[in-house]
Amino acid sequence: MTTPQPEHHPRIGVWIAGAHGDIAATLITGVSALAMSLVPTTGLTTVMPPFDRLPLLDPRDIRFGGIDVRSSSLASAAKSLEERSHTVDRDLLDAVGVRLKEIEQDILSRPDVVWDPSAPANRPPTSLVEVIEAVKEQLRAFRAKHALERVIVVNLSSVQPTPVSSPLTESLRGLEQLIADNRKDLVTSSACYAYAALVERCPYINFTPNVGTRWGSIAELAKRNRIPFCGDDGKTGETLVKTALAHMFACRNLQVMSWEGVNLLGNNDGRALENPLNREMKLRHKERVLDGILGYSPHVGVSINYVPSLGDWKTAWNLIHFRGFLGVPMTMQFIWQGCDSVLAAPLVFDLVRLVDFACCQGEYGPLRHLAVFFKSPLGVAEMDLQSQYRMLLHYAEQHLQNPAE
Amino acid sequence: MTTPQPEHHPRIGVWIAGAHGDIAATLITGVSALAMSLVPTTGLTTVMPPFDRLPLLDPRDIRFGGIDVRSSSLASAAKSLEERSHTVDRDLLDAVGVRLKEIEQDILSRPDVVWDPSAPANRPPTSLVEVIEAVKEQLRAFRAKHALERVIVVNLSSVQPTPVSSPLTESLRGLEQLIADNRKDLVTSSACYAYAALVERCPYINFTPNVGTRWGSIAELAKRNRIPFCGDDGKTGETLVKTALAHMFACRNLQVMSWEGVNLLGNNDGRALENPLNREMKLRHKERVLDGILGYSPHVGVSINYVPSLGDWKTAWNLIHFRGFLGVPMTMQFIWQGCDSVLAAPLVFDLVRLVDFACCQGEYGPLRHLAVFFKSPLGVAEMDLQSQYRMLLHYAEQHLQNPAE
Amino acid sequence: MTTPQPEHHPRIGVWIAGAHGDIAATLITGVSALAMSLVPTTGLTTVMPPFDRLPLLDPRDIRFGGIDVRSSSLASAAKSLEERSHTVDRDLLDAVGVRLKEIEQDILSRPDVVWDPSAPANRPPTSLVEVIEAVKEQLRAFRAKHALERVIVVNLSSVQPTPVSSPLTESLRGLEQLIADNRKDLVTSSACYAYAALVERCPYINFTPNVGTRWGSIAELAKRNRIPFCGDDGKTGETLVKTALAHMFACRNLQVMSWEGVNLLGNNDGRALENPLNREMKLRHKERVLDGILGYSPHVGVSINYVPSLGDWKTAWNLIHFRGFLGVPMTMQFIWQGCDSVLAAPLVFDLVRLVDFACCQGEYGPLRHLAVFFKSPLGVAEMDLQSQYRMLLHYAEQHLQNPAE
Amino acid sequence: MTTPQPEHHPRIGVWIAGAHGDIAATLITGVSALAMSLVPTTGLTTVMPPFDRLPLLDPRDIRFGGIDVRSSSLASAAKSLEERSHTVDRDLLDAVGVRLKEIEQDILSRPDVVWDPSAPANRPPTSLVEVIEAVKEQLRAFRAKHALERVIVVNLSSVQPTPVSSPLTESLRGLEQLIADNRKDLVTSSACYAYAALVERCPYINFTPNVGTRWGSIAELAKRNRIPFCGDDGKTGETLVKTALAHMFACRNLQVMSWEGVNLLGNNDGRALENPLNREMKLRHKERVLDGILGYSPHVGVSINYVPSLGDWKTAWNLIHFRGFLGVPMTMQFIWQGCDSVLAAPLVFDLVRLVDFACCQGEYGPLRHLAVFFKSPLGVAEMDLQSQYRMLLHYAEQHLQNPAE
Repeated sequence: MTTPQPEHHPRIGVWIAGAHGDIAATLITGVSALAMSLVPTTGLTTVMPPFDRLPLLDPRDIRFGGIDVRSSSLASAAKSLEERSHTVDRDLLDAVGVRLKEIEQDILSRPDVVWDPSAPANRPPTSLVEVIEAVKEQLRAFRAKHALERVIVVNLSSVQPTPVSSPLTESLRGLEQLIADNRKDLVTSSACYAYAALVERCPYINFTPNVGTRWGSIAELAKRNRIPFCGDDGKTGETLVKTALAHMFACRNLQVMSWEGVNLLGNNDGRALENPLNREMKLRHKERVLDGILGYSPHVGVSINYVPSLGDWKTAWNLIHFRGFLGVPMTMQFIWQGCDSVLAAPLVFDLVRLVDFACCQGEYGPLRHLAVFFKSPLGVAEMDLQSQYRMLLHYAEQHLQNPAE
Repeated sequence: MTTPQPEHHPRIGVWIAGAHGDIAATLITGVSALAMSLVPTTGLTTVMPPFDRLPLLDPRDIRFGGIDVRSSSLASAAKSLEERSHTVDRDLLDAVGVRLKEIEQDILSRPDVVWDPSAPANRPPTSLVEVIEAVKEQLRAFRAKHALERVIVVNLSSVQPTPVSSPLTESLRGLEQLIADNRKDLVTSSACYAYAALVERCPYINFTPNVGTRWGSIAELAKRNRIPFCGDDGKTGETLVKTALAHMFACRNLQVMSWEGVNLLGNNDGRALENPLNREMKLRHKERVLDGILGYSPHVGVSINYVPSLGDWKTAWNLIHFRGFLGVPMTMQFIWQGCDSVLAAPLVFDLVRLVDFACCQGEYGPLRHLAVFFKSPLGVAEMDLQSQYRMLLHYAEQHLQNPAE
Repeated sequence: MTTPQPEHHPRIGVWIAGAHGDIAATLITGVSALAMSLVPTTGLTTVMPPFDRLPLLDPRDIRFGGIDVRSSSLASAAKSLEERSHTVDRDLLDAVGVRLKEIEQDILSRPDVVWDPSAPANRPPTSLVEVIEAVKEQLRAFRAKHALERVIVVNLSSVQPTPVSSPLTESLRGLEQLIADNRKDLVTSSACYAYAALVERCPYINFTPNVGTRWGSIAELAKRNRIPFCGDDGKTGETLVKTALAHMFACRNLQVMSWEGVNLLGNNDGRALENPLNREMKLRHKERVLDGILGYSPHVGVSINYVPSLGDWKTAWNLIHFRGFLGVPMTMQFIWQGCDSVLAAPLVFDLVRLVDFACCQGEYGPLRHLAVFFKSPLGVAEMDLQSQYRMLLHYAEQHLQNPAE
Repeated sequence: MTTPQPEHHPRIGVWIAGAHGDIAATLITGVSALAMSLVPTTGLTTVMPPFDRLPLLDPRDIRFGGIDVRSSSLASAAKSLEERSHTVDRDLLDAVGVRLKEIEQDILSRPDVVWDPSAPANRPPTSLVEVIEAVKEQLRAFRAKHALERVIVVNLSSVQPTPVSSPLTESLRGLEQLIADNRKDLVTSSACYAYAALVERCPYINFTPNVGTRWGSIAELAKRNRIPFCGDDGKTGETLVKTALAHMFACRNLQVMSWEGVNLLGNNDGRALENPLNREMKLRHKERVLDGILGYSPHVGVSINYVPSLGDWKTAWNLIHFRGFLGVPMTMQFIWQGCDSVLAAPLVFDLVRLVDFACCQGEYGPLRHLAVFFKSPLGVAEMDLQSQYRMLLHYAEQHLQNPAE
């Protein structure tokens, strides 16, 4: 990344749904610190060869804004990164403090725009049409205020229950009918974000397991408006390890009988996942990853337990019970102790840079080459981490050989 | 593998140095059981696509023989697999008992042909020339007795101290001078096996970390006689996992600060590795594997502790201390509980099949496409498991597209 | 234990509910092997000083019998210990085979006497009165057939759902009313065992978490008939470790914030615990153990996941998140890989010996000195393993000093 | 602890050998913070019942001073606790900053008074007599300067090689002869501290494994001067867990075959323990602890590996391989991730309080009731944590029942 220059005007907006959360606070603090050359680039894929030869966004080119259901502040979220998670230190916080306050000006607290599709009582009075108009209006206002070339929308919101599936979501016409009919039982707030972003010609990154990006209607809209999008669900911890490790068992013909995973975590995500409805969606993503790599379906268990004292630090324990030669059973275990937001934030920044680049190249629809960043990549069956990474390498090399005009 | 036929005459010999050890007993029991279709093919790479489409050796085509410093028997080694390691059961032992007795006829107990290069007092009176003549004679006799087309020599012997390196080992002429001078301080018994095998035009598989295969003289001899060989040191447990996992850290730009490994084991190998001279060689192999994958050298520790009660079951614990975004330190640990000989034996059988196939194709010298099977592959810098596996896939696909006449 | 004598006539009967299960098979195989001096006494508390100086039951003095809902056999259960769990070997099985067949004569398969209190549809037609009469009749017949001095009833049956609690179970009169009214929603089959045993003046050991022994009615009956009983729920694995370890945190004033436990198991118990109703009862026992030792209630999670491939081998992982000086959070984890029935069986034999001894001493009611054997000991608040063990030591020493006439 | 009062004059001095180390910095920061009621008392044994009813030292009654071979400062050590170990936060550092500067006035940097008994070349020119006079002089000066009633000397220095043992150290006369003869190969700097402290009638706490306190001469001197002392080697992490857990195996008659421990650490202690001479002493302490509890000697391995990136955070992994009923082998593992200085510092404060109390009671010689705090307690064979704790409870209860005048 280049050395800082005075008077740099950010040209790209990043609009975050869930802007007061731990990932957002880590992302904004980190990108601000990178812009000031205060921290190393560890954890970022796009700074490594060959990606470093692509003309990707500079941290100083980004202006953040967003929305959150919580009325807390970015500053208090960042403070808790220092005091609770010990992931940023006081000096860094002090250095980015002014910038965080500035960004806070562009964060809206809107507890009225999230609802639980399975709980009619909890749905806010605003209609879907009004919600979507509000989101569109916010995106337009943000772009106009800062004279931004482009606004990229990133969904970092909490896990939501999956609504009943409907064939109507598979066509744009059907989805728009559901919106007109105010079907909050079928169209979630995350789906509204995806829809509104694409209508406003904003690229959309779904870092959550929440529905929307997988619907035919969303792909249709992205294609019509020639806008790229990607998702679902950032691959940060346990699933990252699983998809890195499973190939070893496959290539040695070691037969995995059971692969059991337990995740202990204490952040908002953990709290949301205590709700069995939310959990079901998350777990489905996590359970699916092994079959393609192994070529068969072992017994898989994934549990997520809320342990408040752990805060944003997740501990995952996995036990893999497998057979080797002569059918002999053996065991491998791993324990992953990572900070969720520290693992997620650099992926989001990588995605913003690569999505922005894709826009510059005129690419649109689901960005399949970004599979390596997601638990449940759109339009990609390949789950093996290294194969996914080679897809990304291949993409970069193609562009380095044939740069767009 | 094809269905058994009556009156099957084995055409390929496998001559094992270390034929009374746990790996040999597991290999011979397992291949015998495969020949009788008593066990599944779990753990074997070469039974999976696309390798299953190559005309590889049938288990029934193999006749085993070998040599060991121990005067114990194959039957007692197999018995201890049942009673101590619980890796074979009584019914299987009973089924292969007759065959094991038969094979025992071709196993020589020769405590006189192994010596410690660093301990002059322990060297047997036999000269290097005599040792080599004896090995050659044994190989010729084994081939003649069973009318074998070819004998493949597999080194499964215990870990030996590494001798001081000498420039003379780099040319065949130099090595032959050292042999003539009876330099037992420089030429080990494993090196004698390699030399004698290749002189006798027997392909050679070095499954141990012992020296020889890396010498220029051995490559020169293999080339002159147009014989293939491969090594070093079977990749069975901790190193397998390390080389499968390290890419994950690399592709996410997670900076590994320390990668500490501890191996507890209770078999012969563990006892041999109590000797610090032997250990040094082994550890050097194990320590080297990460640098190429990561692109830098983290702090690496590998310890091997002898814990008799564990027998052939090895427990490896690894702690990986790494930095992520914002320099935040995080931790991953894994625990591998595997049976060494059960992990090693199928690799040996895969190697025998692939080396035999290479012979049929007229390939010779170090077989680089077999890197995936070794901790320290000859002539290959690539340490990443998946990349190594792709090399093997590529080899198979080439041969499937252009089968030799 | 004394040397075997010819013509030994067993004088004490042990009647097992769940006699075809893994624990029963391990117990019967093990006690038979002890009677023949084929195995060491590892795992038994009562063979150590000072208990070895008490006149406790000899293995040869015991005759086993029992009942099971499964129509399988003791021999097939024992066979699966060899083949699946690798906890007994072929030679041992062969040695005890005849005895197991003999004992099988005294095991009844009665799928009609177990029901789910929460599922009216699954209740068998037999009335509670009939069930209890049947049990009583079986106990009388077993005692008479073998001219036994005493029959000790041991409950090793599967976990059952806990019924709604009723004040009527608190008095014997109330319980007998419920039985007369055939209230299968309130009186479980385990409670019937307890009641029938005590009516028949048979001491009763509840090794399960199933209800009954905690009811006032059962204590009243035991007191009236002057019969001892004990329970609940054998302390075999994770809870054993927890109650051994918690004192360390207490005495160092290390503040446990969270103690999370995950149990993976694949036996019948695991299958039964998939049913959330059964699980609830088990978990309640497990969760309660820390509070008394620590003096406060940390966040506690206990999950039990059914992993069929593990069979009778349970893996428990616990994460303990605690604060030390200056409030610094630290972590301890443990992993327990034990075979459930191998851990449980010696406790059952110890209990049989100590309950028999208590009978000889004229002791009756809940045997509080046996707390060390149970997750949820009757009438004892002390949960610390070592304190419980001292209670048992104290009991033994009292009896050694003042032997009964 | 009582509420703060204005104008409090500390009456007890604590003189630390190793005053610039991590433990000292944590201790001094922590006790200062306790004096200002800024932190909870977590981690302290002596604040719990019944110890809280003894008239123990208030944190405000202590004045710290000491000596270190390093010329760094307390402030920089405390700063590294914040930045490297994350065990204190900025606000706390700021709050105690002034006090730390004040205490620094009483810390001497003396690189000339530590030497390696096994390396003649490294011995400083000062003679033993001069070293001891210097220490005595320092203690007198410190006491006089602050008008202290008593100075307690605490050894927190680095691990030193154990000298060859000599019968002369067993009598005071012999030791004084060795000192007069300047036998630096036999009398270490830690031994000089012990000797000088007791001569100056200062109680002495040996929190290290370094020699001295175990010598007959030191006990003789303590008895003659009627001064208490205690040691050796604070029981903070892995050994704490081992001595808490071993009883579980003993009381269940589970036969421990192997107990293997691996300690990864990155602090000064870790660096010192890279020296095999230092390590030997430490490991001897650690290996000895199980035999007494178990009643036999299992295979024990303890390794200490220096992993710089871990800093003051130690990770210990232990594998316990044991047999249960029928001789079945099972496994328990634990992983301890604790901060060494955070675990050690409260023990030191507890010891200071209890040693001061012992002085007030006129107790002298080795304080056996403090065994619970040490890996290798003086004059106590009992290694079981809970039994040791009961010794301390018993001591407190005796004193509460019969308070001294």
